[in-house]
Amino acid sequence: MVTLFGNLESGNVHKVQMILRRVGVPFRRVDVAQTKGEPRSRAFLQLNPIGKIPAVLLEDGDVLSESGAILYYFAHDTPLWPRDLRSQTEVLRWMFFEQYSHEPTLSVIRYLTHYVEEPQRYAEQVRQLLPKARHALAVMERCLERSPWIAADGGTVADYALYPYTRVAGESGFDLAEFPAVTRWLARVEALPEFLPMGVDGAVETVGFAAYFSSS
Amino acid sequence: MVTLFGNLESGNVHKVQMILRRVGVPFRRVDVAQTKGEPRSRAFLQLNPIGKIPAVLLEDGDVLSESGAILYYFAHDTPLWPRDLRSQTEVLRWMFFEQYSHEPTLSVIRYLTHYVEEPQRYAEQVRQLLPKARHALAVMERCLERSPWIAADGGTVADYALYPYTRVAGESGFDLAEFPAVTRWLARVEALPEFLPMGVDGAVETVGFAAYFSSS
Repeated sequence: MVTLFGNLESGNVHKVQMILRRVGVPFRRVDVAQTKGEPRSRAFLQLNPIGKIPAVLLEDGDVLSESGAILYYFAHDTPLWPRDLRSQTEVLRWMFFEQYSHEPTLSVIRYLTHYVEEPQRYAEQVRQLLPKARHALAVMERCLERSPWIAADGGTVADYALYPYTRVAGESGFDLAEFPAVTRWLARVEALPEFLPMGVDGAVETVGFAAYFSSS
Repeated sequence: MVTLFGNLESGNVHKVQMILRRVGVPFRRVDVAQTKGEPRSRAFLQLNPIGKIPAVLLEDGDVLSESGAILYYFAHDTPLWPRDLRSQTEVLRWMFFEQYSHEPTLSVIRYLTHYVEEPQRYAEQVRQLLPKARHALAVMERCLERSPWIAADGGTVADYALYPYTRVAGESGFDLAEFPAVTRWLARVEALPEFLPMGVDGAVETVGFAAYFSSS
């Protein structure tokens, strides 16, 4: 069985959980807490030198990391990865947009307002990120006014990549009612087969970080 | 002929120039100055709603954007994109690492220390980014101590993606002599066929932003 490393609060981990469920790959999950610095611990860096979650340990011992690459790996031989080069390029365009312009604004605002001990210390940083996050949502709105899916017909891995931090944009200070096409698209993603909501553990079995690394 | 939108100071544009040269696709370049806000101008947003450079206009009128996606498109049918899924996933892993952890630290430090009017205003932001940028270089060093190329044999599109902002890491405050495996790898990339150094215009023809958009 494959092993997914990551916590349930992370949208990047959620993407991987959703794809594994969608493509029917059962998995074990090892809980890795970013708030405790566990991704930068020596044990975890042995596994993923980049020091980030999510990471996936395959049965043969190989490790995948970076959510976009993990999504590609598991979706590649399914309809979630289109067959023609131009559509594939469009899927990657939105996945890179998500990791460069969308996640680093929406997710960081959410983190600095909900997951740190003294959020007031980060008020200026949040103030600078807000217009960038709004731009990211506006770009999606404009795309989704013209098309039901973000990159190609029927929904692709790009829709999964963009879903988590868009879904919790309220926690980043946005009212999704301002983005009606985005709101309809969220419902469309949630109606996909085997959809798994954020915060829900989709693993067959879950293991704590210390328990896993002390026994391995 | 395809048209590349972007300026010569941008490493993300440099990646695309290098790949177009390597795969033998002649291109016209339209200069787009980030310092003048041109990527967010109305004319440019019509072309690329994400409001970022590089973007590539194909002969049939389609537009590609996000450097990683553009690199994928032009490298896909060449040896720079490996044939097996696991190697492809490894290439994407490093390309996502570059856009998420490497470029946003190294490139932003370089920008805030060399391209803004009052760099002292950003001293605290730079101080916070420096350890993250150092971690990104250390992750590359560890990988390149074991392998001549970053993701797969013979060099791939991931090496091109990581080259520009690593090459100018000195402008981000780092001494590359501390990273000997990275330094050897830079020379290896520079010895690849049709290599184009940063700052050099590889276009067949170059057009100014105003000239292009007033005539189109």
